Amino acid sequence: MADRADLSAPAATLGERIGAELTAFLAERTGPLTAISPDLGPLAQAARAAVLTGGKRLRPTFAYWGWRSVQPAAAPGEAQLIRAAASLELLHACALVHDDVMDSSDTRRGQPAAHVRFGRFHREQGWHGSAQSFGAAGAILLGDLLLSWSEELFASAISCLPPERARAAIEEFGRMRTEVVAGQFLDILAQARGAFDPDEAVRVVEYKTSKYTVQRPLLLGARAAGGSPEVLDALSAYGLLIGEAFQLRDDLLGVFGDPSQTGKPAGDDLREGKRTLLVALAFQAANPAQRALLQAGIGDPALTADGVARLREVLERTGAHEQIEQRIVERAAEAARCLAAGSLRPVAAQALLELAQAAAHRTF
Amino acid sequence: MADRADLSAPAATLGERIGAELTAFLAERTGPLTAISPDLGPLAQAARAAVLTGGKRLRPTFAYWGWRSVQPAAAPGEAQLIRAAASLELLHACALVHDDVMDSSDTRRGQPAAHVRFGRFHREQGWHGSAQSFGAAGAILLGDLLLSWSEELFASAISCLPPERARAAIEEFGRMRTEVVAGQFLDILAQARGAFDPDEAVRVVEYKTSKYTVQRPLLLGARAAGGSPEVLDALSAYGLLIGEAFQLRDDLLGVFGDPSQTGKPAGDDLREGKRTLLVALAFQAANPAQRALLQAGIGDPALTADGVARLREVLERTGAHEQIEQRIVERAAEAARCLAAGSLRPVAAQALLELAQAAAHRTF
Repeated sequence: MADRADLSAPAATLGERIGAELTAFLAERTGPLTAISPDLGPLAQAARAAVLTGGKRLRPTFAYWGWRSVQPAAAPGEAQLIRAAASLELLHACALVHDDVMDSSDTRRGQPAAHVRFGRFHREQGWHGSAQSFGAAGAILLGDLLLSWSEELFASAISCLPPERARAAIEEFGRMRTEVVAGQFLDILAQARGAFDPDEAVRVVEYKTSKYTVQRPLLLGARAAGGSPEVLDALSAYGLLIGEAFQLRDDLLGVFGDPSQTGKPAGDDLREGKRTLLVALAFQAANPAQRALLQAGIGDPALTADGVARLREVLERTGAHEQIEQRIVERAAEAARCLAAGSLRPVAAQALLELAQAAAHRTF
Repeated sequence: MADRADLSAPAATLGERIGAELTAFLAERTGPLTAISPDLGPLAQAARAAVLTGGKRLRPTFAYWGWRSVQPAAAPGEAQLIRAAASLELLHACALVHDDVMDSSDTRRGQPAAHVRFGRFHREQGWHGSAQSFGAAGAILLGDLLLSWSEELFASAISCLPPERARAAIEEFGRMRTEVVAGQFLDILAQARGAFDPDEAVRVVEYKTSKYTVQRPLLLGARAAGGSPEVLDALSAYGLLIGEAFQLRDDLLGVFGDPSQTGKPAGDDLREGKRTLLVALAFQAANPAQRALLQAGIGDPALTADGVARLREVLERTGAHEQIEQRIVERAAEAARCLAAGSLRPVAAQALLELAQAAAHRTF
């Protein structure tokens, strides 16, 4: 019973604690920035918007439960770990801001993307040159700033832990940053190649999502807590499985989701030409007419609502939608088995089980 | 005499030591990257090209002489300081790669810019979609990777120094990263506004160059060495002055330089519409006909060789060229006075005096 109460208390306030860390850190960093010149106000404002508006705080949450897999509630170092975990949101904000420039995505979390905001600002001011180029430049700089700040928050927080545990967490943080760039590079390669290759799609998911979003944050938290090899192995396996389930759900929502819930226009993933496993499996099973539809429609920025509906039909009829749903269920079940075998603290195992269910079955 | 020999020995090999650190670090980091997938080979290759091809290694050099302003040759920690200093080249490589995307500059150090290389690769492979977008995306990711790696090399090297000195150096490293983004943001604002404002131009120089290229690296090295307030004050003042002289020389070379020496096409700064102090002073002193020429020509990507020649004439006749030359001489002289008053180790004061002369009077 103590364990149950324990679960609900920190879980209920974790998002708030992370939000408070981010708000405090951004205030501390944007002050000196606008002190340089009030002209840097829009950059400071964009940093706040990118970090504090919405977001599921997934990476800090997994880092926290990685820690709690090893340490009891309110153990020494927990406050520092939560600060370090919050820094992952700054890193992620950089990834999203840069990703939206690379994809020319106009919307993020139901709001205009950073490059769109900067472009609008340029237009409102009636400035010279291309508003679009200005928007992209502003967003590239914003991302660089967020990436630097992420590391500053992380390093200052983690250095308060015992040196060996801090070093282990720093190693995971470094891997996380290299792997997400690797995953994104593999993703743009896959899109450029235009192939519908299931193996390639799985590899992109592994690096761009599974490791970056779940596995590394969990390991970061658990290694910061001094976790045993058994705990690390269980979290590592769970992380890859749930990361995949999370991304596959994301891919389904990107095609079949309700825009009012996802905050993204319907079918945007199809227009962007994302080479998802969903699409690759459909292509494999498609007849010639269906293949022609997939090849013509996926990556067509002018795809209409009718076109989206026709592609959805192909994804259904080829069985790809069903296969992905099945795969999500299997991954979530396998992840639950890993948790049960992993000698984690029960409260953390329970929280991770709930997160697994949420990742697999969410609607936004 | 010992001091003289001392000066020439490390100065001759400093570039090699920095190069060796960078080569070793990149080998260590690109190995695991291409182990993820051989498809990441082009990313690893681009990282090596961005870091190891050319460059004056200015920031590591200033960091080293900041350290040597305080510490004798071969003092404990020197090897770590040189490793930490080398990391500034990775940071700078990020800044250049992203800057070239923002400016759409095709050339860097006489070679194709990173986004141009990635774009060519896309074309050679006959891939889908826009080669230009692929090039920009690849370069954004490359810059992010270099920025992360820069911090990893810096943090691992600096943590070997005594904690208080390490913390002071980390603080300078953080400021350096925030200030360069601030300077670049102010720069794109100035270009977008299209005003010819000398005060604005001076402020951009202060953040984008003086602090980032000279002052912060010097302070980073000197604080890592445990420098006294007197030494820090002298280096700080010297840094701002020489940074400005360096940038003003750069601005002159960007307009009047020999492309075979600068590695940049003649007049490229004019085509890009850079709001330099040179151009702002010319505008201030110009008659209406000259103003019209400046307004029409600066920022015109299609500016011909004749157009460049006409703008050069305006920069001469308004006295702006001469004013900038004068300002460079004054800044260098004032910097020399700061050094003399600063109780630096003589060998470092001498090296910094030579660097000041080189910055003020270089031809490339």
